Amino acid sequence: MKKSFLLAIFIFCIVFSNLYAQNKIVVFQTDFGLKDGAVAAMKGVSMGVSTELKLYDLTHEIPAYNIWEASYRLYQTAQYWPAGTVFVSVVDPGVGSKRKSVVLKTKTGHYFVTPDNGTLTLAAGSLGIEMLREIDETKNRLKGSGESYTFHGRDVYAYTGARLAAGAIKYEDVGPLLPAKVVTIDYQQPVFENGIVKGNIPILDIQYGNVWTNIDKTTFAKTGAKAGDLLNVTIYHNNTKVFEGTMPYAATFSAVEEGKPLLYLNSLLNVSFALNMDNFSEKNKVFSGAEWSVEIKKQ
Amino acid sequence: MKKSFLLAIFIFCIVFSNLYAQNKIVVFQTDFGLKDGAVAAMKGVSMGVSTELKLYDLTHEIPAYNIWEASYRLYQTAQYWPAGTVFVSVVDPGVGSKRKSVVLKTKTGHYFVTPDNGTLTLAAGSLGIEMLREIDETKNRLKGSGESYTFHGRDVYAYTGARLAAGAIKYEDVGPLLPAKVVTIDYQQPVFENGIVKGNIPILDIQYGNVWTNIDKTTFAKTGAKAGDLLNVTIYHNNTKVFEGTMPYAATFSAVEEGKPLLYLNSLLNVSFALNMDNFSEKNKVFSGAEWSVEIKKQ
Amino acid sequence: MKKSFLLAIFIFCIVFSNLYAQNKIVVFQTDFGLKDGAVAAMKGVSMGVSTELKLYDLTHEIPAYNIWEASYRLYQTAQYWPAGTVFVSVVDPGVGSKRKSVVLKTKTGHYFVTPDNGTLTLAAGSLGIEMLREIDETKNRLKGSGESYTFHGRDVYAYTGARLAAGAIKYEDVGPLLPAKVVTIDYQQPVFENGIVKGNIPILDIQYGNVWTNIDKTTFAKTGAKAGDLLNVTIYHNNTKVFEGTMPYAATFSAVEEGKPLLYLNSLLNVSFALNMDNFSEKNKVFSGAEWSVEIKKQ
Repeated sequence: MKKSFLLAIFIFCIVFSNLYAQNKIVVFQTDFGLKDGAVAAMKGVSMGVSTELKLYDLTHEIPAYNIWEASYRLYQTAQYWPAGTVFVSVVDPGVGSKRKSVVLKTKTGHYFVTPDNGTLTLAAGSLGIEMLREIDETKNRLKGSGESYTFHGRDVYAYTGARLAAGAIKYEDVGPLLPAKVVTIDYQQPVFENGIVKGNIPILDIQYGNVWTNIDKTTFAKTGAKAGDLLNVTIYHNNTKVFEGTMPYAATFSAVEEGKPLLYLNSLLNVSFALNMDNFSEKNKVFSGAEWSVEIKKQ
Repeated sequence: MKKSFLLAIFIFCIVFSNLYAQNKIVVFQTDFGLKDGAVAAMKGVSMGVSTELKLYDLTHEIPAYNIWEASYRLYQTAQYWPAGTVFVSVVDPGVGSKRKSVVLKTKTGHYFVTPDNGTLTLAAGSLGIEMLREIDETKNRLKGSGESYTFHGRDVYAYTGARLAAGAIKYEDVGPLLPAKVVTIDYQQPVFENGIVKGNIPILDIQYGNVWTNIDKTTFAKTGAKAGDLLNVTIYHNNTKVFEGTMPYAATFSAVEEGKPLLYLNSLLNVSFALNMDNFSEKNKVFSGAEWSVEIKKQ
Repeated sequence: MKKSFLLAIFIFCIVFSNLYAQNKIVVFQTDFGLKDGAVAAMKGVSMGVSTELKLYDLTHEIPAYNIWEASYRLYQTAQYWPAGTVFVSVVDPGVGSKRKSVVLKTKTGHYFVTPDNGTLTLAAGSLGIEMLREIDETKNRLKGSGESYTFHGRDVYAYTGARLAAGAIKYEDVGPLLPAKVVTIDYQQPVFENGIVKGNIPILDIQYGNVWTNIDKTTFAKTGAKAGDLLNVTIYHNNTKVFEGTMPYAATFSAVEEGKPLLYLNSLLNVSFALNMDNFSEKNKVFSGAEWSVEIKKQ
């Protein structure tokens, strides 16, 4: 009887520990590309922390040093990963300078391990800042790596992210608490004024050449536009007009003829522009970044 | 006694459930590329279904809208994955139009989650159709995604594939049974007539520029060619002659001098053409697709 | 009582087997690219061996047939993966010729499954050769693949690597023991003579255009250079001078102005050259390989 009771406790512990463990997922993002061994070294360090971790990639094709795009990709995807997921993002033009290495915990329970250089602009905004801690590198740094000044991605970020995801450290063990405020990049917010909705082009849907704005469905709805309505669209680069045209608000690409423009809500439910079966960006020389803006008016 | 008996049942259940669980593997294929967050969002949704899933990639570099190549890549690789593997393939130029979203179960026990737009042409042919079901999107759709019209890859295909692989739904729960027939793309079958073997060039071995035909070993054997024999090869694009030449049937690339052509059986045991240490496709302007054909005759 | 004792043994066995299992990690490297299904077929075969395996990628973007770079990438990353990790590297211009298929076990407990064609040059040197075995293809080859001459990567290397990582075979089951010596590629070792340190440029940090040498920190220290000191750097291609310049030894990129050159220790603690926020390689037409050499002298 006693032994079977002990066994019951033992089994309970196993089951319980599985139920309440971290989800053990680490998602990596860098501007390193996949041609060399940098990303593989980061994953090797993570497996050295725990072979139980599940390592995934957001992208490693962020254009070199493009903090804005790093920020956008985290914003675009993090919400679809379960709470507890640890994102390790390394786009770090200031490596070795005074930018802080931090771990953000969002109100949604996601973790972001990154240099605090603007990378957190959009994810912090959309998911909310629960707490921000600076990584204490005296404790959270791969052993034997102290003499290397240049690969924080492997020695600090991947190592700390892996230990956090594996439960080898708790969030409190990351380092000292910082004020709940991250470094941000300025960009035009979506607004509706005098019958015109304005916004920014944060990113392209690069594979297809579609143009994505930051104008959400609710702001756009203030124009009163319904599916099938025609809209006047003007796009500016540094306040210089680059594109002007009229297109319908369409629920599907196939609602317009091949090669014709449409305005649609993308998978984030933001206003976007496309040519059906063609490349809006290349055809109209419209690209993305903080310096691009757009105005939309219902005809 | 009674307690240990209950424990035995408990342990039996754990072991049994592991033995008979789905293999929990999901393999993704798209034309999205890896520069943005689309694939990562699909994987995030899958991890949200179950962190026990094992997520792999076939390729995300299918040329945009190229359904034929998507079909070929599934055909090329699915047979090497264990039964129970769930393939999620999203090359979907008709998103939002009337193409059906389906899950094919093959006679080999593999599952394919995809728009039924021709993507299943070759895998259905080689692995056999066991059953075909249409995805019931009223049940099999990520919660809260109902207003998004354009990212079926994430909201329907990844979500349904993940739930099927995780055992959260059974195959019967996908949706209503369809007739056991998929949408197919026409292409020339391999034939042997009057001493000549004819076939199609479905794909290139793009990294090396080798040209792969759909002529299987058995059909080719009807020419009577043995290793070392010379063969006359003619290649047509829309019935216009593009290449004509003579080359040996070789068991290894190093059987011919560097830069010289050879005919060999590729890793699928289909007839292929290569230049040893050079690029047959680029040198001879021979590419792939339904409109390419080839004739081979033993000298 | 008796039954609970049996249960205890049963549970012990489960726990024990988990503690002492292989780490079950396989890391793949090829020159196949990710546009076709070759890598996915290798992973499918591996999952067919055991769904418990954890499959990762080093890179599949090794330039076609570039054995030197394959060797370098293994050297760069293997040390960061835990002991027991199995690397499967397939850069194999001599497929079908007489190169041997081997599995190297290093003194660090890592395994390398590869054609013995120079791929092991640098990893064998840095991690040490414990044992070398030739793969017995009569036993270690995917069933039903005997007629395919050209895809050793899938049928022999992936299959054998997966079985070794999964514990389906032991290292002794790979095949006959070979002399503890791998095929190597000649390259200039780092030396310090007459106040000048010489070395080779094995690789570029391609994403950023930084130039990495094989001159380790200890050899470089013989120049007596300290952070901030100026150094004369000369770079040769086949003994022809390509670059000559002066730059500081800097601990961080931001220690010099944008666009200015610096000498730094990279993440492997080897001497490297960079332009802060720019591309040293492209600007100065300096590339990598056995035929590149460098001389450094303290000013």
